[in-house]
Amino acid sequence: MRLALAQINPVVGDLAGNRELILEHLAEAKREHADLVVFPELAVTGYPPEDLLLRRGFVRAAEESLEAIAAATRGLSVVVGTPFRDGDELYNAAALCADGAVIAHVKKRHLPNYGVFDEKRYFTPGTETRLFVIAGKQVGITVCEDMWLPGPPTTELAQAGAELLVNLSASPFHLLRDREREEMFRLRARDSGVAVALCNAVGGQDELVFDGHSLVIDANGELVARAPGFIEHLLVVDLDDPGSGTVAPRRDELEQMREALVLGLRDYVRKNGFGEVVVGVSGGIDSALTAALAVEALGAERVHCVSMPSRYSSSGTRDDAQRLAENLGCDFRELPIEPVVEAFAGVLAGSFEGREPDLAEENLQARIRGTLLMALSNKFGWLLVATGNKSEMSVGYATLYGDMAGGFALLKDVFKTDVFRLSRYLNEQAGRELVPESTIDRAPSAELRADQLDEDSLPPYPELDRVLEAYVEEDRTLEELSADGFDPEVVSRAVALIDRAEYKRRQAPPGVRLRPKAFGRDRRTPITNRWRS
Amino acid sequence: MRLALAQINPVVGDLAGNRELILEHLAEAKREHADLVVFPELAVTGYPPEDLLLRRGFVRAAEESLEAIAAATRGLSVVVGTPFRDGDELYNAAALCADGAVIAHVKKRHLPNYGVFDEKRYFTPGTETRLFVIAGKQVGITVCEDMWLPGPPTTELAQAGAELLVNLSASPFHLLRDREREEMFRLRARDSGVAVALCNAVGGQDELVFDGHSLVIDANGELVARAPGFIEHLLVVDLDDPGSGTVAPRRDELEQMREALVLGLRDYVRKNGFGEVVVGVSGGIDSALTAALAVEALGAERVHCVSMPSRYSSSGTRDDAQRLAENLGCDFRELPIEPVVEAFAGVLAGSFEGREPDLAEENLQARIRGTLLMALSNKFGWLLVATGNKSEMSVGYATLYGDMAGGFALLKDVFKTDVFRLSRYLNEQAGRELVPESTIDRAPSAELRADQLDEDSLPPYPELDRVLEAYVEEDRTLEELSADGFDPEVVSRAVALIDRAEYKRRQAPPGVRLRPKAFGRDRRTPITNRWRS
Repeated sequence: MRLALAQINPVVGDLAGNRELILEHLAEAKREHADLVVFPELAVTGYPPEDLLLRRGFVRAAEESLEAIAAATRGLSVVVGTPFRDGDELYNAAALCADGAVIAHVKKRHLPNYGVFDEKRYFTPGTETRLFVIAGKQVGITVCEDMWLPGPPTTELAQAGAELLVNLSASPFHLLRDREREEMFRLRARDSGVAVALCNAVGGQDELVFDGHSLVIDANGELVARAPGFIEHLLVVDLDDPGSGTVAPRRDELEQMREALVLGLRDYVRKNGFGEVVVGVSGGIDSALTAALAVEALGAERVHCVSMPSRYSSSGTRDDAQRLAENLGCDFRELPIEPVVEAFAGVLAGSFEGREPDLAEENLQARIRGTLLMALSNKFGWLLVATGNKSEMSVGYATLYGDMAGGFALLKDVFKTDVFRLSRYLNEQAGRELVPESTIDRAPSAELRADQLDEDSLPPYPELDRVLEAYVEEDRTLEELSADGFDPEVVSRAVALIDRAEYKRRQAPPGVRLRPKAFGRDRRTPITNRWRS
Repeated sequence: MRLALAQINPVVGDLAGNRELILEHLAEAKREHADLVVFPELAVTGYPPEDLLLRRGFVRAAEESLEAIAAATRGLSVVVGTPFRDGDELYNAAALCADGAVIAHVKKRHLPNYGVFDEKRYFTPGTETRLFVIAGKQVGITVCEDMWLPGPPTTELAQAGAELLVNLSASPFHLLRDREREEMFRLRARDSGVAVALCNAVGGQDELVFDGHSLVIDANGELVARAPGFIEHLLVVDLDDPGSGTVAPRRDELEQMREALVLGLRDYVRKNGFGEVVVGVSGGIDSALTAALAVEALGAERVHCVSMPSRYSSSGTRDDAQRLAENLGCDFRELPIEPVVEAFAGVLAGSFEGREPDLAEENLQARIRGTLLMALSNKFGWLLVATGNKSEMSVGYATLYGDMAGGFALLKDVFKTDVFRLSRYLNEQAGRELVPESTIDRAPSAELRADQLDEDSLPPYPELDRVLEAYVEEDRTLEELSADGFDPEVVSRAVALIDRAEYKRRQAPPGVRLRPKAFGRDRRTPITNRWRS
């Protein structure tokens, strides 16, 4: 049997576009003489369609789209993910199509309803398991979570005599997720003694990135073929000739971070109909990394850099902002904000009389910058990319409607320590300076008052990031963190800041999810919440 | 049996505060010689605790809090809602306590996972049903959804000989929800031939309001007692003397809207530790209604009104803004924005050269106002209450970081037509002008350019609101709406606007949910979404 795994990048809700994409890959699989071509989970609609699934007209249209796909299946079998209404129930299904028609729907049995997943909101679980004969082989079809859990349907299909288990996935990325996934599928193949083929989606959808890395594994659990990550690919393998499979190399953590951020941004821009983006560059490292990644995602000609110095901006950061744009080859402009600061001060003078300058004046500068960037965004149709990192977003060290403003917050799941690592890595990979070295070397400062340093307000980032990782990612309690040897004062300060910043995060733009807890729908915390520990 | 239903207002995460509240009501029930006092669903933690439930330390602390409550149960039985860990599983449970100890946990069997609910994310469903003898009566205990569905556990408990079915709820409000709830519980009582007592929570929690309206219904389905809506209450009924029950009057739709908005705002302010609020008043009806409701929720001395006229503000709206504040007795200041507009224009002159004024200049004014209000908020600790209504939020006729800025968007689920109805109603109820009559009579305008009217950009509000109700609330398709007789042009324009505005709504502040689809977690739409129909 010649098997093709079509690792494609659908767009949620774009039924016509997804159909076209599926038909193109189907035609290519035919040209490759495949007997069977497999598409990802819910490829017909894109994943996750969320509450579009509650609209009957949407599901009806998806069914019609599937019919049109099935009509093109002459000479090979096709398995494609699609929603399937059966009576009053809706299923997350894999449709098997051949000879111009839909032959069968296989219903997903294990519905994930944790982390970023809400599948029990929409779907009824399937209960049946059966095999299909395709090109003379006994084939079992499963959908994503079905094979993440031991037991049925995998064991049932193996007992029934399966020779190949096909799995359709839209398995979201987090760092090194490909390793976990590959290990898990190898384990299933080994335990069941059946070859396994995983077709995973690729592409960015709001906060999620799907990383591809589709796989073919033999009945001994040995890897036969692996598609590359983060790009579309048709992986073709002759199952009777395992040597026919190509194995794309694995990427390390930093490279995965880079690729996920680039793909996530590129797809958000493209799928939402934007052409160009604008980034406020301060001379600091967050905005430098954001701009550098944006250039990689979109090309320098589609990235606009804007420096907005105030009286507190040093000549070092002003120069670095300009140098960054030169390094990247981007459009650059400098819009000094001082006249606007003074105009606001005049309007507020009566109200603020007798009060010392404080956070209000600092936030004002950030909001003036946000407002300037949004004015450019509105005037020229550029998507504003916000530059805040995960460490800041965690503790609320960011200004709502100021530096948090934007359509996409690229680094929202990148810890500050990783911002440094990734900036150095980009320079290394480029073999030249992209992020200015002086930016990397300078101590972080918001430059919203004289001689301000982030470390005046926050624990040092290496220490803070370790606490964040333990508290946010691992849900450790205050007590446990102290027992782990963290400084109790740092911990209780950080935890209080994290919980109080929920209202800010709720109004933050989406950004690429890199870790299991990205402050998106993977971490649903009430705003009104008096729990502190 | 003397039954007390403690309709209390817990705070999510405030275990100590909730315990105190429970103990106070328990003591009051004792003074009333109750045999049994019932508290709402998850009263120990507040509802919904969301992902706090995934933190082991939180659940452990809730269990300890329950033990402390149980210790106080001498002389009467107590049923209180609490999370309950049993082995590796977590349950949404009702704890029966008596004689100083927890006697039993009853596990919720039907877990809602639709609309605003995510209970399958956290809980395992219970499977058992049993009766408890309390004050000589056979009592069945159920939790919320358990009685919304026909069949078990209600039928099983009835068959087993129940004489009273107790239901602990945190049943979120939407308009006239109390009628639906009462009808449903009367039906269950009648069908099962068993008396029913519902104890519902009250209070605001982020977007949700719990409306109380606790109930006692006899075995014939007749209402014996009803607690008032929107306030805490201990409803005491002697089940052997149905005449002992008091029946609070029902409220009509407008009055419910008023009460829910007032309670939702008051609790958001109070539970998040704010003292005062600030409202930008434009002389238009949305901000006037917002300020009037804020005064009702908090008192005039805690509401600050700020008028921020531009060159496009008419003398009519300027006067109305001031008159509103006088009518309400609020602090009032006028901060003309023209100097800031000019300063921005100067900074942007180079970038905007040769371009006609457009939306960019309009949004700029809105963002200057948002920035001024946030400056006051930061300086004085006032919560900024945003003034946008549901019609605007639906179609995106609002400026991100401008008029959408704020910690709470009070009217986000109030259609524009209801803004008018409610304003007139408040004036009627007050017996004097609160919202100026001239504000009510004026055609709506954003006043962001000369001679601008909302109807230049949008269909007339009565028409728009009908489309929104059908498309958003009822999930009707474009085709169905046309078949229903809606103007196809208005419909397709509105639908395109609604879907494209998702990215704005995602960054909007929370606000009081009044309808089943309030653009919160009741309507989860992807931002990246090419579906249009």
